[in-house]
Amino acid sequence: MSNVYDPKSSSYVDRSKRHSNGAAKALLEVMDRKKSNLCVSVDVAQKQSFLTIIDTVGPYVCLIKTHVDIIEDFDDQLLAELKALSERHDFLIFEDRKFADIGNTVKLQYAKGVHKIANWAHIVNAHPVPGPSIVEGLASVGLPLGRGLLLLAEMSTKDNLATGEYTTRAVQMARQRPDFVIGFIAQRRMETIGSHDTSHGEDFLILTPGVGLDVQGDGMGQQYRTPKHVITEAGCDVIIVGRGIYGNGDDVDAIRKQAQRYQADGWKAYLDRLSK
Amino acid sequence: MSNVYDPKSSSYVDRSKRHSNGAAKALLEVMDRKKSNLCVSVDVAQKQSFLTIIDTVGPYVCLIKTHVDIIEDFDDQLLAELKALSERHDFLIFEDRKFADIGNTVKLQYAKGVHKIANWAHIVNAHPVPGPSIVEGLASVGLPLGRGLLLLAEMSTKDNLATGEYTTRAVQMARQRPDFVIGFIAQRRMETIGSHDTSHGEDFLILTPGVGLDVQGDGMGQQYRTPKHVITEAGCDVIIVGRGIYGNGDDVDAIRKQAQRYQADGWKAYLDRLSK
Repeated sequence: MSNVYDPKSSSYVDRSKRHSNGAAKALLEVMDRKKSNLCVSVDVAQKQSFLTIIDTVGPYVCLIKTHVDIIEDFDDQLLAELKALSERHDFLIFEDRKFADIGNTVKLQYAKGVHKIANWAHIVNAHPVPGPSIVEGLASVGLPLGRGLLLLAEMSTKDNLATGEYTTRAVQMARQRPDFVIGFIAQRRMETIGSHDTSHGEDFLILTPGVGLDVQGDGMGQQYRTPKHVITEAGCDVIIVGRGIYGNGDDVDAIRKQAQRYQADGWKAYLDRLSK
Repeated sequence: MSNVYDPKSSSYVDRSKRHSNGAAKALLEVMDRKKSNLCVSVDVAQKQSFLTIIDTVGPYVCLIKTHVDIIEDFDDQLLAELKALSERHDFLIFEDRKFADIGNTVKLQYAKGVHKIANWAHIVNAHPVPGPSIVEGLASVGLPLGRGLLLLAEMSTKDNLATGEYTTRAVQMARQRPDFVIGFIAQRRMETIGSHDTSHGEDFLILTPGVGLDVQGDGMGQQYRTPKHVITEAGCDVIIVGRGIYGNGDDVDAIRKQAQRYQADGWKAYLDRLSK
């Protein structure tokens, strides 16, 4: 088995060399550089609160996950400030758009509208449910800009339908476009799904939502696991944490402490995995 | 079998009485009043073009389907004009948002952001993939406003994943919330899916995309069927037509003629079904 490549036992920086996609390379490099596998999900409806949280957690994260479509006072200035924070604090931006339409529509949703997502989001995600045409539509916009796509192969909500054959077909769709599909939103590694050949050096980025240190659920179907479960045991790569970090309002000291705590916990879980 | 209720052999106006949801009732009533089962999907990126198309096709449709997130010069004035057109021409508005996130996030996406969809869209749709929490999240915003939800039980794209058990579970999710889930985006009737009891009077609205009279495909995975296939044979209720109506630019006479043609063809297909 010594010749079989296993992303779980490889360092983020070594894995960056296996990806041809610029966004995947950049993310793995920043994870190594900042010693962080923490992505903070910033789900607030006011621009000032959005920017304050990002400025506070920025030094401790590899990635900021956004839902710009929930921000009521969204404008072009917000995008300019978001880009500036991304450069100042050295993180990538992941717009959690969950594209889920036919190819021709997602092209327009990705490139156009007031949000112009392709202009500023290094990474976006999509549901595989429409079939391969969704990946083709997004790739036609994103690849020329060096962007990367994650597919939602699994979800963390109760009684979700992204299981079994659905998950397998999501992975098969990703394999058809390794230049653009850089990995998955999932709860475990995906290289062995739907494949009998694990020796060809496949490496997917696995970003995992539903991570929390203090809570079990939100009463609306979201279920939580710890960084140890997600990184050390399940072998995922990036922990996505939202309300666990800024759930107590805009007290920047409290937010900073939570971000530091999750960064340390996530990185320890990664080092524990490498030393296994 | 004479005691078994069958939506396919009932008139739209009779069926309106079986729905408790206000948006479902209103849609079936306007279909009867205007003799139209035509929904025009307006997928353009400029406000003026968007409003011109809607003003042109308005008299011939029961429903306008929008993707406001692709409109580059979207603003509050557009929403005011869209609402005014809806009242002047007597049609409902369906924002084809394809919500696909966890309950807490879709609540925000539905109510907030620059688009404030719940304020003006009588009907929205969602993918069932996150499980029942997506319906609960959307219902908490939409029900107090009298809105209705369609689930995507099937898709019309090539090699899509909304098949088999996925479709069955979508229908089961709808049955849990008949006050809010008014029907499906699908290619056929759904009452018999996952149920051995067809006598309890279930009535879903079936809205069907991928309808065209002149084309076979768009080269990006979209496949087309005619109104006869969709309404008469498959028993669906509303035909959704997009580029088949305004694909040749903004020539309002050409657009009007196409809308009249699809309205007539769709209504004939419905009358043919009733007379079977």
